[in-house]
Amino acid sequence: MRHLLAVEDLSREQAERILERAESFAEVGRRDIKKVPTLRGRTIISLFYESSTRTSSSFELAAKRLSADLVSIKAVGSAVDKGESLKDTTSTLSAYDPAAIVIRAPQAGAAKLVAGWTDASVINAGDGKHEHPSQALLDVYTLRGRLGSLEGTRIWIVGDVSHSRVARSCLLAFKLMGAEVTLCGPPTLIPRGIADATGVAVRYDLDELAEADVVYALRMQRERMSESFVPSLREYAARYQIDERRLGPRQLLMHPGPVNRGVELAPEVIDSPQSLITAQVESGLVVRMAILYELLAGSDRARPDRGPAPAETPPRIGQPA
Amino acid sequence: MRHLLAVEDLSREQAERILERAESFAEVGRRDIKKVPTLRGRTIISLFYESSTRTSSSFELAAKRLSADLVSIKAVGSAVDKGESLKDTTSTLSAYDPAAIVIRAPQAGAAKLVAGWTDASVINAGDGKHEHPSQALLDVYTLRGRLGSLEGTRIWIVGDVSHSRVARSCLLAFKLMGAEVTLCGPPTLIPRGIADATGVAVRYDLDELAEADVVYALRMQRERMSESFVPSLREYAARYQIDERRLGPRQLLMHPGPVNRGVELAPEVIDSPQSLITAQVESGLVVRMAILYELLAGSDRARPDRGPAPAETPPRIGQPA
Amino acid sequence: MRHLLAVEDLSREQAERILERAESFAEVGRRDIKKVPTLRGRTIISLFYESSTRTSSSFELAAKRLSADLVSIKAVGSAVDKGESLKDTTSTLSAYDPAAIVIRAPQAGAAKLVAGWTDASVINAGDGKHEHPSQALLDVYTLRGRLGSLEGTRIWIVGDVSHSRVARSCLLAFKLMGAEVTLCGPPTLIPRGIADATGVAVRYDLDELAEADVVYALRMQRERMSESFVPSLREYAARYQIDERRLGPRQLLMHPGPVNRGVELAPEVIDSPQSLITAQVESGLVVRMAILYELLAGSDRARPDRGPAPAETPPRIGQPA
Repeated sequence: MRHLLAVEDLSREQAERILERAESFAEVGRRDIKKVPTLRGRTIISLFYESSTRTSSSFELAAKRLSADLVSIKAVGSAVDKGESLKDTTSTLSAYDPAAIVIRAPQAGAAKLVAGWTDASVINAGDGKHEHPSQALLDVYTLRGRLGSLEGTRIWIVGDVSHSRVARSCLLAFKLMGAEVTLCGPPTLIPRGIADATGVAVRYDLDELAEADVVYALRMQRERMSESFVPSLREYAARYQIDERRLGPRQLLMHPGPVNRGVELAPEVIDSPQSLITAQVESGLVVRMAILYELLAGSDRARPDRGPAPAETPPRIGQPA
Repeated sequence: MRHLLAVEDLSREQAERILERAESFAEVGRRDIKKVPTLRGRTIISLFYESSTRTSSSFELAAKRLSADLVSIKAVGSAVDKGESLKDTTSTLSAYDPAAIVIRAPQAGAAKLVAGWTDASVINAGDGKHEHPSQALLDVYTLRGRLGSLEGTRIWIVGDVSHSRVARSCLLAFKLMGAEVTLCGPPTLIPRGIADATGVAVRYDLDELAEADVVYALRMQRERMSESFVPSLREYAARYQIDERRLGPRQLLMHPGPVNRGVELAPEVIDSPQSLITAQVESGLVVRMAILYELLAGSDRARPDRGPAPAETPPRIGQPA
Repeated sequence: MRHLLAVEDLSREQAERILERAESFAEVGRRDIKKVPTLRGRTIISLFYESSTRTSSSFELAAKRLSADLVSIKAVGSAVDKGESLKDTTSTLSAYDPAAIVIRAPQAGAAKLVAGWTDASVINAGDGKHEHPSQALLDVYTLRGRLGSLEGTRIWIVGDVSHSRVARSCLLAFKLMGAEVTLCGPPTLIPRGIADATGVAVRYDLDELAEADVVYALRMQRERMSESFVPSLREYAARYQIDERRLGPRQLLMHPGPVNRGVELAPEVIDSPQSLITAQVESGLVVRMAILYELLAGSDRARPDRGPAPAETPPRIGQPA
């Protein structure tokens, strides 16, 4: 594995390897010194063209706990954003010889393009409405921690499926791990023909929600109203909000965050015992450490133009830090 | 001590312990390698809902000099700011198991709320018009460095007391350490009844300023004019500006920064020998190191759900960094 | 050398020393652990009053690879930007006793002013239309890597010379190293009298471009049109764009970035074999490491008020990190 671009490209074996690695990092997280020297002296670039707190801070802390040097570029409204093509920015950043570039961009396929332009490992932290693979892997990790396995688990993904890269990546990841997935939301927000294309079930109301083992609610973007996909948030909430009336006591609740309290989720279910929302964030850190580890550690991607190996090069400036 | 939320909660003994600890960090700051490994592998989150350069950079450098891993979240205008409740953000950040959360927020009481929602130590870096305890402690530290003790020292706090968390925290801290405090400013900007409530003196002009050992000028917010608290900055400056005519040669001058040159302070006094303004910033760094140290180092706050202690857990990923 | 403020102040010997040092850092960059402990425990402050991705990330990564603690202040639109004079900000930041302050500001001469107000080493990362010395040094380094020496090399600097600190610093640096410099651009964008003042040639068209060994294209700011310096970008491009028709196969192409594709450079030349643009960015990192090293490492700038030397002061808090 050199890049993590999409769940679509991932084999079950590759996913399993990341999940197992994440388990050992969970143990590092319980130590007092929550840090390993694995990526010391290696550079990780985080390049975010969309604002993000959760995903970027999770990747950045993961990099720090692996002792990497991090360059964090928030490109929203920046020079990078305005003046320069993605290709030129990639060339620029690649000149620092980073071990990895973590990229979020509003264009589907952006991460894959970047991967074609750089020697670094590329991690897709969200590309438009396409995919968000680290989110899906952390969700699988969270569920496995509770259920042991996803084999045969019935998972309902509820909300704006059409505009959600999380929905897409999770759907693929849950199926890869053996779960049975149902998509549920207003007909305007479920892609036509997705049932046939992916082999999932589709529902337009919550009447049969009781059959789900896991309810995965998606974030409802406020702009969907002005775009006329839903008449109002109130209307949406009335038909699709997960509340304590609809959520059964043995059903697990997930959400990729940040939650719109009172829209897709009623306040009381967010903090209920069934809610895995905080566990998902916790998983995010260790799964992202595992992704960086799998892509970067022990990799031997010497470039032909690099000259002699480091071991044969006597340091002239000083000992490695 | 688990949190630092308000000077109001602080005993004199706790304050003294932080001040003494700060003195030993001052000595680290004179070394070539201005860094100790105390908090290596521990995570400190800095969460600022108001823009700040001085306080945030001071806390961040303090964390780095203690070798902690820092996650810095500038929430002004961010996703955190807009979409998510403070409670949900706290849950999210707590999932990283940080040792401390340093928070600045526009709501009085925000830090205390956060402390109720997390296992981390919480440091209030300013909560609305309520308190800013690290500022008050660094001011006490600065004065003790000059005067040895605050016992009996006469300190005038001049300016917009009503809207100032610095005024409130300093008033309490100066009194805690034995100083005699006078508040001075326009009647519209001194809270009614504060003399009776806190046992300080109140003045509405600078006529008796000569009696002060220390003059502590507050920052005048420009928006106070549009809110009609003062007729104009020019008018305010005429009556309350500290200039070389009003400041005696043996009086010390303080200001929490950033200064509005020519409003609350005349340019010539800012750089005068009596000015402690730069010394305050210098103190800020060591006092914040001391606060982090007192709250975090040697603390043994193992949670029941943490499983075996780190020492009994053989590392599977690698040695600690 | 205590500061790096302008190429104008630099002797050839000083420039050579930085370039040689950069060569040894290039070798560190080829190691797996791209990091040396040289500046461990020292603080570097990066203070940018203009938005920048390339220069700031380059300096920040350089500081990290030297193991320094970095405080990065983006002052665009911040409190620092609005409320506080540059002098007061310098005093504030100097209170942290930083080893170096890297500053970019819109006022020519800003870095020099800062150098007068602080004990830290000051590096000018761009001051208005005046100078950008690290850019010029990295450009010299890049060319020497290709050509061995600049002695007698004919370099054309093409574009908006009048408004470009890069043009000014490069002109001086190229001449310092023995190159023959020609400035080329619209008459409205070449300072009057510069030929006499600096001993360079001036051209107003590209007719003789074939005589150049190196073509250095400047970034064309879009605001120059609204200011009526050029009729339109299309017009400018027609007369001054470097494209594959104008660029000969043995000519080298440089640009300080970010490139306006299709304005000063045609897309096809950006990625051509003659283009050194990516090499320039790569050089930027090692040259900035070298600048920090030359200014800070082994320097013995003890201040009189510092008390006993660190070695004589037994650590009370713990061993250095």
